[in-house]
Amino acid sequence: MKGKTKSAAPGPLMTAGAGRGYTDYSRIFHPRRVAVAGVSREGVFSYGGSLVLSLQAMGYEGRIFPVNPKGGNFSGLEIFRRIEDIPENIDLAVIAVGAAAVPDTLEACRKKGAAGAEIISSGFSETGTPEGRALEGKIREIAARGIRVIGPNCFGIYCPGSGLTFLPNPDLSRQSGPVAFLSQSGGMASDFANMGKWMGVRFSKMVSFGNGADLRETELLRYLLEDGETGVIALYVEGVEDGEDFFAALREAARKKPVVVLKGGLSRAGGRALISHTASLGGDRVIWKSILKQAGAVQVEDLNEMAQACLAFSMLPPRACKGLSVIGGGGALGIAACDFAEFFGIDIPSFPADLKKNIENLLPRSGASAANPVDVANPYTPPETVNGILRLAAGDDRIDLQIMIFLFHHFRQIARTAGRPVGETIPFREFAEALEDAAKETGKPVVAVLSNAKRGLEDLDLVETTEKARQAFLDRGVPVFEETRDALRALAHVNAYYTRRGQGWDE
Amino acid sequence: MKGKTKSAAPGPLMTAGAGRGYTDYSRIFHPRRVAVAGVSREGVFSYGGSLVLSLQAMGYEGRIFPVNPKGGNFSGLEIFRRIEDIPENIDLAVIAVGAAAVPDTLEACRKKGAAGAEIISSGFSETGTPEGRALEGKIREIAARGIRVIGPNCFGIYCPGSGLTFLPNPDLSRQSGPVAFLSQSGGMASDFANMGKWMGVRFSKMVSFGNGADLRETELLRYLLEDGETGVIALYVEGVEDGEDFFAALREAARKKPVVVLKGGLSRAGGRALISHTASLGGDRVIWKSILKQAGAVQVEDLNEMAQACLAFSMLPPRACKGLSVIGGGGALGIAACDFAEFFGIDIPSFPADLKKNIENLLPRSGASAANPVDVANPYTPPETVNGILRLAAGDDRIDLQIMIFLFHHFRQIARTAGRPVGETIPFREFAEALEDAAKETGKPVVAVLSNAKRGLEDLDLVETTEKARQAFLDRGVPVFEETRDALRALAHVNAYYTRRGQGWDE
Repeated sequence: MKGKTKSAAPGPLMTAGAGRGYTDYSRIFHPRRVAVAGVSREGVFSYGGSLVLSLQAMGYEGRIFPVNPKGGNFSGLEIFRRIEDIPENIDLAVIAVGAAAVPDTLEACRKKGAAGAEIISSGFSETGTPEGRALEGKIREIAARGIRVIGPNCFGIYCPGSGLTFLPNPDLSRQSGPVAFLSQSGGMASDFANMGKWMGVRFSKMVSFGNGADLRETELLRYLLEDGETGVIALYVEGVEDGEDFFAALREAARKKPVVVLKGGLSRAGGRALISHTASLGGDRVIWKSILKQAGAVQVEDLNEMAQACLAFSMLPPRACKGLSVIGGGGALGIAACDFAEFFGIDIPSFPADLKKNIENLLPRSGASAANPVDVANPYTPPETVNGILRLAAGDDRIDLQIMIFLFHHFRQIARTAGRPVGETIPFREFAEALEDAAKETGKPVVAVLSNAKRGLEDLDLVETTEKARQAFLDRGVPVFEETRDALRALAHVNAYYTRRGQGWDE
Repeated sequence: MKGKTKSAAPGPLMTAGAGRGYTDYSRIFHPRRVAVAGVSREGVFSYGGSLVLSLQAMGYEGRIFPVNPKGGNFSGLEIFRRIEDIPENIDLAVIAVGAAAVPDTLEACRKKGAAGAEIISSGFSETGTPEGRALEGKIREIAARGIRVIGPNCFGIYCPGSGLTFLPNPDLSRQSGPVAFLSQSGGMASDFANMGKWMGVRFSKMVSFGNGADLRETELLRYLLEDGETGVIALYVEGVEDGEDFFAALREAARKKPVVVLKGGLSRAGGRALISHTASLGGDRVIWKSILKQAGAVQVEDLNEMAQACLAFSMLPPRACKGLSVIGGGGALGIAACDFAEFFGIDIPSFPADLKKNIENLLPRSGASAANPVDVANPYTPPETVNGILRLAAGDDRIDLQIMIFLFHHFRQIARTAGRPVGETIPFREFAEALEDAAKETGKPVVAVLSNAKRGLEDLDLVETTEKARQAFLDRGVPVFEETRDALRALAHVNAYYTRRGQGWDE
């Protein structure tokens, strides 16, 4: 954790909650003392036990106080019988006890000075029963007395900078980054955290807030908008508590940072399903679309699109890139790139004759094309040629960004012919350097598409090499997408956001 | 090859070419004697050499006659100096010599009785030069005298039933299936063949026809429409030779078999790029959309969508499935499924109270939901429970098909806790059996979604297990998609096609 937990993180220490007094977010996201209620001695198979192990695996450096009425020891730590027995004040409580025991536990945590508590347990308003609703009402009452609650029925907080993690995820990335994610759904949050790890999306913090009895979308959005650790805000909402206030916060946030929103439950059947999921009210497809657009937020349709948009926002410069060059091997790929680009409002301008001629000098005589898209014809085009083409193409003033498409599966044949492992045949580190160098020298970002058509059991070495290549590209600041279409769609979101911001947000 | 090449395949032996005399397709797709022109003794690194090796690797059981002016031996075969020196008549010629030498070679093949020739070489009309165009003109003249030509500037034929394969692909699937693919682009054809292998799309034959100097989209479409080996026709076109005739053939074909079309070059820039690719003229986005719809063809926007549509058409029964049940772990997934289903015009009807109650009896008390979508809450729900839910849900008359969503990455935690490899922890064979059994017992197809959020270098074992699971599901007749959205989109294509066909194709 590189000592990041030793002092409070940058960002606002306190913000005013919506009439709920002050919230000490730094003690919630970067706690030095965490109580975990619900840890039995058979802990490996218990919720609370998994949480303790996950915190340890994530490198959380503060103190952990496991709590269970039976006492004992777990994973090198003394188990306290009651919250009250913990010898120190606590910053954050993680509550994973049965629903009926939650209110008393929460109250005890409040008395122990906790700034916040995440309630992992379910069995509240999402059940639709009077008992569930009553228990959730009690949670609200206690929260109003001065402890901020995340949940219930949630996965809580993932914050790589402090080592907090979602329940079943001791192996999320420990690297921090600019993307924050707020999610009503724990599954969505956990999936995004897992996907982000290999895709290269790095997070400042994630909050899965489930039923959102206390802290939820609007208030957390206002916090993130001021949070110095967060540069991009992503949001999964099913329903919102106070539409008007949410819209105001969204507008405010989008004026300062890109905000990417996935709205679940847009359909009638989806609306029905979400009532049993987090007890929210849904909304209409058209209304949501126009609300999000008016607020200046970026709307996406699924988690893949969200992750890709966040990758683009976090790795590309904060400006629109309207004109593109596309370089790859294979004419149909270039044609497809043009078709998608036009659909997404992106221009792929034809190169002037002199530039075409210069690029032609780097290409094989037969089968290649130096127009934009550039068809290098040979899938084994060496890194220095790729670098040369990128440097030349960047000379065209209309080019703001370049996309390089790699088809690594073609190296299978080269590897076979040469009798070498495919991982040694693909010069992916040199390609990564070639792209980084071109981007740095020309000031125009380069995006890589790593497409792999061979993904069966006999091609796992190619799958592995593609993943290694992805990491090498990401390490050098080159964002990676699996399909050209994905790259263009993400770029279209970046363009739409910064174009709108540049126009001063007039509605 | 299970002796498949020993006799000519079923299907029409001869069909009338468009004014070009008779075409013996069975000698072209299932040849017993193939000449490969352009095989040097340094063959491993030559085009022609790779082709010979690929044919051998694919298990082609007929005779191969390598040809090169220098003579010698290659891979256990005598190299003939000239086509004329081959001691027997040939069925098919594969021509991979320099462009200038192509016409003479082709004429020699014609005289040797070849029914067809695939010309892999480039350097013809796609170059845009008078020389290139003149050479292609010569090819047309020779073809008109009685040898059918595929190409030039193409990858030729992939036909798993006979062992013919594209150039750089000795490792394409050797299993035959119902999907035929015609493609102007060799890259697209090769990518589809590679993707199909692990996705479970099996091919009767693929033809990459490149510049299409002789045999091309319209004539091949008419052949496939009668071909007994082909049940689904897929098509990648950039431009067509004779729009009216193509449209007529498309209409005819779509009335008999599902036809899936990917049109490249819909944009202005895409149109520009395709001129240098295969020397075709593009077309307008709106015109193509309406033409394809009128013809009753299914239009897709990229190769992924095409492959997924072909998987659905080849594995699902030939009818529309309007009402669905969706079963999975996690509320947000169900909500997303509903949102996409509505978008694609598919219904996910809410279950009646008694059915809900019966399903509830199989689910955990907390966090689950027995409405449709069914949220099983626990990602480790055992196969027999999954089977039970599927059997119950099929009892609702409105359900035509069921989607089961698996999130195998959750098993990582189980595997860690149990100290076992993740591959042993996921009962994927039992899941496959549970789904196959439910489909067979109820007569309602079951589709699996195998979603894996953990795909980084430390999770390659999970990637491998997911691939093994995919094959186990496919082996039991259960089509597999990576995302629920993909499954629903493919299903929407199936529904649109059969609904239209059921309505008697009135325009």
